[in-house]
Amino acid sequence: MKQSNRKIAEGILFTDQYQLTMAQLYYRMGLHEKQAQFDHFFRSYPDYGTHKAGYCINAGLEWLLDWMRNAHFGDREIEYLSSQTGRTGTRVFQEDFLDWLRTNGNFDGITMRAIPEGRVVHPNVPLTVVQGPMAMAQILESPLLNHLNYQTLIATKAARIRESGRGQLMLEFGMRRGHDKGANAGARAALIGGADFTSNVGISHILGYPPKGTHAHSMVQLFMSLGEGELGAFRAFANMYPDDCLLLVDTINTLESGIPNAIKVFEELRRKGHKPLGVRLDSGDLAHLSIQAYKMLDEAGFPDTSIVLSNELDELVIWQIITQIIEEAPRYGVDSDRLIKRLVYGVGTRLITSWGESALGGVYKLVAVYNENKWTPAIKISESLGKTPNPGQKRVWRVYDRRGKATADLISLDDEDLHKAEHIVLRHPWDHTKYRVLNQRDIAEIEPLLADVLSEGKLEYPLPSIEEMRQLRRFDVDRLDAGVKRIMNPHIYHVSLTERLWHLKQNLIESVKKETQR
Amino acid sequence: MKQSNRKIAEGILFTDQYQLTMAQLYYRMGLHEKQAQFDHFFRSYPDYGTHKAGYCINAGLEWLLDWMRNAHFGDREIEYLSSQTGRTGTRVFQEDFLDWLRTNGNFDGITMRAIPEGRVVHPNVPLTVVQGPMAMAQILESPLLNHLNYQTLIATKAARIRESGRGQLMLEFGMRRGHDKGANAGARAALIGGADFTSNVGISHILGYPPKGTHAHSMVQLFMSLGEGELGAFRAFANMYPDDCLLLVDTINTLESGIPNAIKVFEELRRKGHKPLGVRLDSGDLAHLSIQAYKMLDEAGFPDTSIVLSNELDELVIWQIITQIIEEAPRYGVDSDRLIKRLVYGVGTRLITSWGESALGGVYKLVAVYNENKWTPAIKISESLGKTPNPGQKRVWRVYDRRGKATADLISLDDEDLHKAEHIVLRHPWDHTKYRVLNQRDIAEIEPLLADVLSEGKLEYPLPSIEEMRQLRRFDVDRLDAGVKRIMNPHIYHVSLTERLWHLKQNLIESVKKETQR
Repeated sequence: MKQSNRKIAEGILFTDQYQLTMAQLYYRMGLHEKQAQFDHFFRSYPDYGTHKAGYCINAGLEWLLDWMRNAHFGDREIEYLSSQTGRTGTRVFQEDFLDWLRTNGNFDGITMRAIPEGRVVHPNVPLTVVQGPMAMAQILESPLLNHLNYQTLIATKAARIRESGRGQLMLEFGMRRGHDKGANAGARAALIGGADFTSNVGISHILGYPPKGTHAHSMVQLFMSLGEGELGAFRAFANMYPDDCLLLVDTINTLESGIPNAIKVFEELRRKGHKPLGVRLDSGDLAHLSIQAYKMLDEAGFPDTSIVLSNELDELVIWQIITQIIEEAPRYGVDSDRLIKRLVYGVGTRLITSWGESALGGVYKLVAVYNENKWTPAIKISESLGKTPNPGQKRVWRVYDRRGKATADLISLDDEDLHKAEHIVLRHPWDHTKYRVLNQRDIAEIEPLLADVLSEGKLEYPLPSIEEMRQLRRFDVDRLDAGVKRIMNPHIYHVSLTERLWHLKQNLIESVKKETQR
Repeated sequence: MKQSNRKIAEGILFTDQYQLTMAQLYYRMGLHEKQAQFDHFFRSYPDYGTHKAGYCINAGLEWLLDWMRNAHFGDREIEYLSSQTGRTGTRVFQEDFLDWLRTNGNFDGITMRAIPEGRVVHPNVPLTVVQGPMAMAQILESPLLNHLNYQTLIATKAARIRESGRGQLMLEFGMRRGHDKGANAGARAALIGGADFTSNVGISHILGYPPKGTHAHSMVQLFMSLGEGELGAFRAFANMYPDDCLLLVDTINTLESGIPNAIKVFEELRRKGHKPLGVRLDSGDLAHLSIQAYKMLDEAGFPDTSIVLSNELDELVIWQIITQIIEEAPRYGVDSDRLIKRLVYGVGTRLITSWGESALGGVYKLVAVYNENKWTPAIKISESLGKTPNPGQKRVWRVYDRRGKATADLISLDDEDLHKAEHIVLRHPWDHTKYRVLNQRDIAEIEPLLADVLSEGKLEYPLPSIEEMRQLRRFDVDRLDAGVKRIMNPHIYHVSLTERLWHLKQNLIESVKKETQR
């Protein structure tokens, strides 16, 4: 796509058509500047088919804010909208509305609260709360969801893979399989969620992380076709990067050619006073090969070299590899713990596309309208009670028990202060038979989760660095129960409503039902 | 991401680090300008878990070419690379290499052949063939795969959904679940592959298609919270867009509220001389609801209105909906054929993320090196014969039988002209026991598939319009056997090698094996 076109396609028109047709309707009805509140939340954890998440890692906010700051209706956008015609050839967008858009079509009226990037988040909890004039808050829906859904999906996957890999170094390698330029957002989210580095050069530069990578099969092939073989390729690479020498050993045959050649070159490096970095295994039985590689490298006197694994890795494959190593390593006299601590994971496709569940179902729902000097809760009654959003203006709290573990997220009305409550009733969001009561003595801490981000368009939020987001993630993941972190069949974390919110919701549902039956 | 940073992150540094470290190695060894050939191909069709593709639709080339034209190493890029340091603090990239990059770090030396966008393509067939100086051809790997993998994945999914929907109108609705700005590439690919329109405003503008969309639940909710109810919302919308009135009828209850209210408003429109467009169903049992909607609209005298279905649709869900309609419609006195011809499909998440298989495994492999005045085939021997790329310079042919159906894709050496052959032996790519012989009398046409695209960086290719790509796709899909198009368990289309290519590959594998055993 041409650069000039890219500006158009990624600016304010990066939204769905119905947001604009609705905005015009609101304008025509005089509702466009009516204050409204939309909640952004997701309804269920990613389900990867054979395994499922028990928590998510929030991500994407900073890039959304950046998009909002730059998006506006300029001449080209207005010209385009004025050229649109409907079925009968009449203009879709009328002059007065476009004039309004030209002046007011920005996000300067938006007030936003949000859960910070890097934090653990759960279903049905408002992650982002948007208040502002109806028309622009509506237009924001599609770009907000686009920016937040994907990065949260990938940060979540990265956190799972990191947990599965027992915290070993993890590299994001997925650019070639990322969805077009979305690969950059994915690399950022991977860093927030659990990757230590990415091979993506540009995004590493922007975010201040050194990009990682060594060489591909093609380098070995080139030297082979020149008659210099794999050994010649390895030697050339070692000469060029004597202190960062990591060799890909599976172009011909890992155990018979790749590792023996790598060891020869490592010995040459050692004689020259350099420490080799390690080897990368990219095909075959990675558990078995890593045991053999470990043994061969140890015997050659390279017990500190890394063994990088890549090839369609994800949390499940890594878990299987580690399981197999624990079982198989002793048979070869290899200490599985020591081997596992030497492993590095290069994770590509299955991280950057969240393989198995390639979208997070985040939604953006109208929950309140400012009407006759007060906020009126809005509701949508779906076929299933579980899909009915929680109405009105709300606060979100995380409750920690005496062990310091998060025991529930609790959604309350805006005027409830849970710090002051003697005991708290946690209501299941839709099953009226389920609730539990927590006394203050069971509670170590009650933490409000939403931070003030924008106040009528003005940034009120000190944007954290990626490193700070990583720190938040580590801290939050540590405070999850082990059962919630299980890769398969995780224990269900409680997301509850306070008594008052629960009753408000029930009453609203009833009143809408009555109205329908009139 | 800030605009200035976006330029960096999406320019020439939109590649993997190892491409740059290898390029420097080639430079140091004097190999950087050696001519090399890389083939881009995928190894297997997308496998969605419960169903699987039997063909793909090629897409992404024009955006890749556009990226290549704009990508170069400017001051900021060079400065960044010169600041990179390795483990021991020494510079990763040295001055002379960076000087070379600054002047030569572009794609002006690249010659490219490719199968046009919109065409049906199959595994192991070179879709893009890149020749050029080793260093820059290597750096191109990651961005080339990024641009082509995703769009081909989505064009393929779109073609399947279109087939499943029996060619009914299909709208792309997925921006909110697309992977960041990749949503734009996805919308483009969806149009090439089978969608008629997209709701994405910006990309519609750039590509010259009118964006589609009507209203969301939030509009109905707003009117409800103002005390005007669903009917008030519908009426306001109809007044605003009397000739493009499509109403979303499931905010409260589809059959008891939504459709009756829509009919009231349609009647009002009719009295004013306008033709309503139809209704959209977004939840519940879409097959059952569409039958009831059809019946109610028919009885009210609106037999020409569309019934738009949305909510997690894909080829499998649509197939199920149609199957259920065929079975259930007669019980309600509804003609299932007529109903099916009134359906429109709004397809979001599962199209834009290719749900079930979120990446196409396209690869870019070194297959030949120009050495001592001749092209030398290069080979990589993997653990499995099926993954060993076909070496050397090649041509690609599609063979049509007397029924006009495509019967095989055939890969030959570059100097083989299959038009002249009396009979053709089609060799299975790796199973030596499998081959078949076609006589010229069985063959209606032999079509070369690769077009000349770039000649040393110069565009030699008249870029087709999206409409032309759509035409190519329709034409190619029509020429596939029904079995190949089956949604589940498709018949396997033959991709074969000529005798000569097959023998070249076997000989190379043998010679590498011998070398390894020396």
